[in-house]
Amino acid sequence: MGLFDGVHAAGPVAALAGDAAWLRAMVDFEHALALACADVGLISAAEADAVLAATVTDVDDVGERAAAIGNPAGPLVRALTEQAGDAVHRGATSQDVLDTAMVLVAAQSLDALLGSLAAAADRVAELASAHAETVQVGRTLSQYAPPVTFGLVAAGWLTGLDAAADRLAGARSRLALQFGGAVGTLSSLGTQGLAVREALARRLGLPEPVLPWHTERTRVAELAGALALTAGAVGSVAQEIVRLCGSDIGELREDGPPGSGGSTAMPHKHNPVAAICASACARRVPGLASTVYASMAHEHQRSAGAWHAEWPAVQDLLVATGSAVHWLSTSLSRLVVDADRMRANLTAAGGTVFAERVTVALADKLGMTAARAAVTECAAADDFTEALTAHLDKAAIADLLDPAGYVGNAPEFVRRALAAHGGRTSNDT
Amino acid sequence: MGLFDGVHAAGPVAALAGDAAWLRAMVDFEHALALACADVGLISAAEADAVLAATVTDVDDVGERAAAIGNPAGPLVRALTEQAGDAVHRGATSQDVLDTAMVLVAAQSLDALLGSLAAAADRVAELASAHAETVQVGRTLSQYAPPVTFGLVAAGWLTGLDAAADRLAGARSRLALQFGGAVGTLSSLGTQGLAVREALARRLGLPEPVLPWHTERTRVAELAGALALTAGAVGSVAQEIVRLCGSDIGELREDGPPGSGGSTAMPHKHNPVAAICASACARRVPGLASTVYASMAHEHQRSAGAWHAEWPAVQDLLVATGSAVHWLSTSLSRLVVDADRMRANLTAAGGTVFAERVTVALADKLGMTAARAAVTECAAADDFTEALTAHLDKAAIADLLDPAGYVGNAPEFVRRALAAHGGRTSNDT
Amino acid sequence: MGLFDGVHAAGPVAALAGDAAWLRAMVDFEHALALACADVGLISAAEADAVLAATVTDVDDVGERAAAIGNPAGPLVRALTEQAGDAVHRGATSQDVLDTAMVLVAAQSLDALLGSLAAAADRVAELASAHAETVQVGRTLSQYAPPVTFGLVAAGWLTGLDAAADRLAGARSRLALQFGGAVGTLSSLGTQGLAVREALARRLGLPEPVLPWHTERTRVAELAGALALTAGAVGSVAQEIVRLCGSDIGELREDGPPGSGGSTAMPHKHNPVAAICASACARRVPGLASTVYASMAHEHQRSAGAWHAEWPAVQDLLVATGSAVHWLSTSLSRLVVDADRMRANLTAAGGTVFAERVTVALADKLGMTAARAAVTECAAADDFTEALTAHLDKAAIADLLDPAGYVGNAPEFVRRALAAHGGRTSNDT
Amino acid sequence: MGLFDGVHAAGPVAALAGDAAWLRAMVDFEHALALACADVGLISAAEADAVLAATVTDVDDVGERAAAIGNPAGPLVRALTEQAGDAVHRGATSQDVLDTAMVLVAAQSLDALLGSLAAAADRVAELASAHAETVQVGRTLSQYAPPVTFGLVAAGWLTGLDAAADRLAGARSRLALQFGGAVGTLSSLGTQGLAVREALARRLGLPEPVLPWHTERTRVAELAGALALTAGAVGSVAQEIVRLCGSDIGELREDGPPGSGGSTAMPHKHNPVAAICASACARRVPGLASTVYASMAHEHQRSAGAWHAEWPAVQDLLVATGSAVHWLSTSLSRLVVDADRMRANLTAAGGTVFAERVTVALADKLGMTAARAAVTECAAADDFTEALTAHLDKAAIADLLDPAGYVGNAPEFVRRALAAHGGRTSNDT
Repeated sequence: MGLFDGVHAAGPVAALAGDAAWLRAMVDFEHALALACADVGLISAAEADAVLAATVTDVDDVGERAAAIGNPAGPLVRALTEQAGDAVHRGATSQDVLDTAMVLVAAQSLDALLGSLAAAADRVAELASAHAETVQVGRTLSQYAPPVTFGLVAAGWLTGLDAAADRLAGARSRLALQFGGAVGTLSSLGTQGLAVREALARRLGLPEPVLPWHTERTRVAELAGALALTAGAVGSVAQEIVRLCGSDIGELREDGPPGSGGSTAMPHKHNPVAAICASACARRVPGLASTVYASMAHEHQRSAGAWHAEWPAVQDLLVATGSAVHWLSTSLSRLVVDADRMRANLTAAGGTVFAERVTVALADKLGMTAARAAVTECAAADDFTEALTAHLDKAAIADLLDPAGYVGNAPEFVRRALAAHGGRTSNDT
Repeated sequence: MGLFDGVHAAGPVAALAGDAAWLRAMVDFEHALALACADVGLISAAEADAVLAATVTDVDDVGERAAAIGNPAGPLVRALTEQAGDAVHRGATSQDVLDTAMVLVAAQSLDALLGSLAAAADRVAELASAHAETVQVGRTLSQYAPPVTFGLVAAGWLTGLDAAADRLAGARSRLALQFGGAVGTLSSLGTQGLAVREALARRLGLPEPVLPWHTERTRVAELAGALALTAGAVGSVAQEIVRLCGSDIGELREDGPPGSGGSTAMPHKHNPVAAICASACARRVPGLASTVYASMAHEHQRSAGAWHAEWPAVQDLLVATGSAVHWLSTSLSRLVVDADRMRANLTAAGGTVFAERVTVALADKLGMTAARAAVTECAAADDFTEALTAHLDKAAIADLLDPAGYVGNAPEFVRRALAAHGGRTSNDT
Repeated sequence: MGLFDGVHAAGPVAALAGDAAWLRAMVDFEHALALACADVGLISAAEADAVLAATVTDVDDVGERAAAIGNPAGPLVRALTEQAGDAVHRGATSQDVLDTAMVLVAAQSLDALLGSLAAAADRVAELASAHAETVQVGRTLSQYAPPVTFGLVAAGWLTGLDAAADRLAGARSRLALQFGGAVGTLSSLGTQGLAVREALARRLGLPEPVLPWHTERTRVAELAGALALTAGAVGSVAQEIVRLCGSDIGELREDGPPGSGGSTAMPHKHNPVAAICASACARRVPGLASTVYASMAHEHQRSAGAWHAEWPAVQDLLVATGSAVHWLSTSLSRLVVDADRMRANLTAAGGTVFAERVTVALADKLGMTAARAAVTECAAADDFTEALTAHLDKAAIADLLDPAGYVGNAPEFVRRALAAHGGRTSNDT
Repeated sequence: MGLFDGVHAAGPVAALAGDAAWLRAMVDFEHALALACADVGLISAAEADAVLAATVTDVDDVGERAAAIGNPAGPLVRALTEQAGDAVHRGATSQDVLDTAMVLVAAQSLDALLGSLAAAADRVAELASAHAETVQVGRTLSQYAPPVTFGLVAAGWLTGLDAAADRLAGARSRLALQFGGAVGTLSSLGTQGLAVREALARRLGLPEPVLPWHTERTRVAELAGALALTAGAVGSVAQEIVRLCGSDIGELREDGPPGSGGSTAMPHKHNPVAAICASACARRVPGLASTVYASMAHEHQRSAGAWHAEWPAVQDLLVATGSAVHWLSTSLSRLVVDADRMRANLTAAGGTVFAERVTVALADKLGMTAARAAVTECAAADDFTEALTAHLDKAAIADLLDPAGYVGNAPEFVRRALAAHGGRTSNDT
């Protein structure tokens, strides 16, 4: 575990996308390739067995030797060949190993990430349901605005997390085998290239792509984009939680285990540490995604640099996004909603947040333009309610300033979001 | 047209995503809203007619007045209201206008972009088909490698462009109406909010989202990501064309109209200007996409800054990607393939590019490891062919060094890519 | 003025870095080149006069014709040559014109930007001075913390703005003439290349670089980095102003002219529109800077794409940063500090924000570890002050909870920041 | 060593900026703080000795415990306190520890980086000097152009690397101590805050900043920008080496140790692996820098997320840039210049690359416009030299097409670049 990994590599994806997982996936590729070669008779069953018996697990050693050839597939193949002989790596090139390993690592990471995301979304759905009618002051462009309900806020989080899951699932579905040999023609396998490819895809449980994609990187870009979108959706929720937990607002609170959210200098502090960490992890992602996008132009049959730049970028994208999702789940599991504080803040906001409502009501009498002018004037007075008595009687004013009557379609929107979320299990894409 | 727009804002998207189009879309929103309000009886038909008769077309003026309120919807609404009275903008907020306008602009831009991309892909498919068996030297990590066919190279371009089109179509399908009023509750419309929303979506031909998405920006992120992926796929093809047009390689040439690709200092120059411009436009996109991703955390009910940052970013993303696609189409339409030069370069590359093939052949005799050692030694000799006579007879050597026999599955891969491309018309997603 | 330019292209830099300015700078280059050629006798005084009499001002036309050759220098040179004959553009290449124009545009933009930034810093210095002892509750990781003074906050803004100005001035000082001809050797000028270069630099008031820098782009990167740093410093201040203006905090307020900061839907709103716009402009910049950094690898003697990508990126960087600085200046000029609200928020924060102070005081009696435990326990009680009576007498408690006595070195830090700021006029770099 | 570290974390900076170094720097901060507290009499010499005797070296453990509080300073302080009691961490906050550790790590990393960069620049200077007159065909926008010398190309590399070193040295000089306590006032140290700060800076060998900079991040941004500029300069040279090593050009070659640059599939390959790795490392950097720039807005007295996001971004920036510089040094030490191939490529480029020169010569007779037309026509003919006989005699033609006479000021520019480089030792900034 690295020094910053407690914050930046939390949750299961860190291991699933870590170096050991990547190396294991590279070995898995070579094992499956041997089996595929045996399937079509290119090597004997005994040779395949020998390859299956060979393995490499020393990340340090492979990492160090990677410097000579410029990638970690070279030393892996050499080590396996030393153990199992020439049946290793038939027809393949370094990029076949590394790209397929990236795909395998991404697939297992996305599976875990989708699980965490679904759990987080379910928790958000509970919040939305429980607080469909819990009034909260609206805030637009930093200023108090007409009320919403906290359930509506949570419903917005829900649609964002569900949209992210859809994009991740889409990117997941397009991850495919890489296998083309030195230049993407499978020429060294003679007439058996396609058969080996088919068997290899089957052995690895991966789709066959139309073509080898050594220099066609839209899959990598789609993966990066889906992760960036997810990190953005997660970071948005996390940042909102941090804000609503802020002492000035105090409408939410993370109730973590003892010791979480403390401070070295301030013993009384109780920081929403999980949401803070989620937000921090999410911030790393847009730059990483731009690295992948900026490295899509792979020249000729294998890129000298753009390809190599993808490895740490994709790994960091998976780990950072996985960590962000994990921290958000943690934050949500700790979250305490203070409905009283929400109502108190709304009350403290004063009647002007209903100015729009009063304007619409007055417009029946004065027309919209005059009503807007009248209300703007009243809103500038010391006491908005008092000022309104020039235009309306007190009962009407009290009615217009009652928040419960002015949350519009918030509860209905919550119902719709919950229905859409509920409909996903039978209808994933 | 701006000073750099000849290069950076080429093709139809520049206008479709330009300021005038955006302003028109904002007016379209207000017109459709008036019709929707009339549909549900909130305003009279006469009032709706008055709104429809009102318009604003002066981009300069709206742009200048936008400074006071911080967005261009404010002055637009004021101007329309001056013309048509209070029936304008019922229930809406500035962000409803701007977000829906962004969606309308993006939709029409993507439609044009998808058209250009399909045309480019069709031209690439022709190249792939015509050159399925045209041999070309492979180049990996900058060094000569076993041969490919130019058709296979083009087939790779094709799958990249088709994948980009799929992602754009996906993002297109999820663009939806924005309509939530001040805080996303539609509260100022009383009981008619949902009915107005439904009518408005119908009038504009846009899907209704589950919720207002004022602060849930996954749609914007998906759009940005699909555009970045597209620019990456397009830029990758463009950069490869530039390389293959390079004097040192000379396998492709842009045959443009007189005057294109010239130089102020060098009268003999004939630069592949269209591919160069496509590559230049594509380079702007990853940074723009990172801006959108980094601005996904919209706080509370309307973000103070993150929202505003999206406008030029999304506009530039559309224009830059549209321009890149346009330039690539132009380049492809000018492209001349020099199959003779391709073969000449392959011949000049010498026999060592078939080292892999010779190794596999020798491995039957010597085993793979020994074969690899032998071939590496021969490859280091002054004359590879001569050196090989230590291991093989001359006829066998001649056979092994014949490129036509060593393009593996390149022609078959081309067929598959063409079939996949052909299957798209009946099966778009 | 574009639709979003009221927000995103505010202040003087928009014009100084705009298309017309860029075209004028290109003409200035050609004029100065003619004078330089006349200086060394390469063309006659009459020829130079003819060139000086020629001009091009139609941005639209040049922009449109730029498409053929792939840059706007080509049509400019053609048009000037039609007016003034062959004395135009001697020894130069398109990139000489465009790079030098970029330098001239950047220089005049930075001069304006530095002026705005200095004015903003002076206003911040006034705030720091006036509020050196105005107590404000601290907020760390979203939670209330021991008090600061608003002067200290402003002093932090000041050091950030001054640091940005230093970096901009550094980048400004390294902007240099570009003049190398087709490939950077000035070969077409025979023996007079260096003399023309020297005269040209003098005529334009620009430093001569050691070498032509057609493909050595550290100057452009330094410019981009200094602008990104500036936008970050400005955006940080702007975002803090937005937060402190937020209804929940209310410690600052923008007191703009009538109509500024209003809302189309909410007549009572008074948004801190200038700070919001500053924050929005600043958000565009990191992605633009990454575009410049990612395009630094210019190949051979002139890059096919990386060079072209710089033009809009540099223009947008200047305009966006200039706009951010202008909006911040505007916000600062409108800023009203509510010292009463600051004190009220601090009081409402309660005694626990002094927990650290109490801990240190108790540590004399109990040791630090026991003191920390005791205070943590008291902080968890319903009434911190009451709970403390178990450890301290009431007078001591009252003393420890007095904010005025616990702002540490805030006033001294303010004095130092003001001194450092004051010392800049005589000591700029 | 991680799986990709052989490529992406090469050279000395990887360890100097690694986790263990960071943890050591955190401990160094606490040790120096204890000494500073003893210097001013806040703690006893015995207490300081106890703190100096305490240490923490287990990165894994600290990393794991960091999750609870959200940063690794918390567990470090707890562990040191368990060993040495309350004298630890007096007056400090977590961010003081982490920011100062970042500064110490950055300083030692930059020192190493500047050393590597200087060595690389010296090697480039040798190349420039040795090849000041070695002719090479120019290539602009991918097409052959008039000749340059390879020395001029190397001189361009040299100015880029030297400019990068200057920016790094500038950023290095502004790294400063972080010490402000909970909210930047040093209030918990009573009247001794400034004295402790001064002693602490002295003990650590760091400049004192004007103010604590917990939320004023221009130093971090300047560091990120200088690293991005350096990576860009380095990546530009590396990419050019890769291109010139390409089989189609073949003017350079990396002559590495046996086994370097090999291929798993192609035994004959000899890839310029060091330059490829340098290019790959450099590509990671622009996105990382954009992350730092986009996280400059730190709110209030300590940011909830933006601060945390800096740690891995800064670490990765240092390691990636350090690795890029190391790989470039390695590439340069292996570089073999093939002057014969350079001349052969120039010859093969044909006479049209001298079209500009011929045009200027003809312009004396025909005027520039007619000369340009005549040469353009000749350049389109099958045999340029033959076609020119319509305008010039054969001796004149031969003279005009002699490359050695048309490298302009290339040798002089080389001399100037070497002089500028040589002048740096006595005159660093």
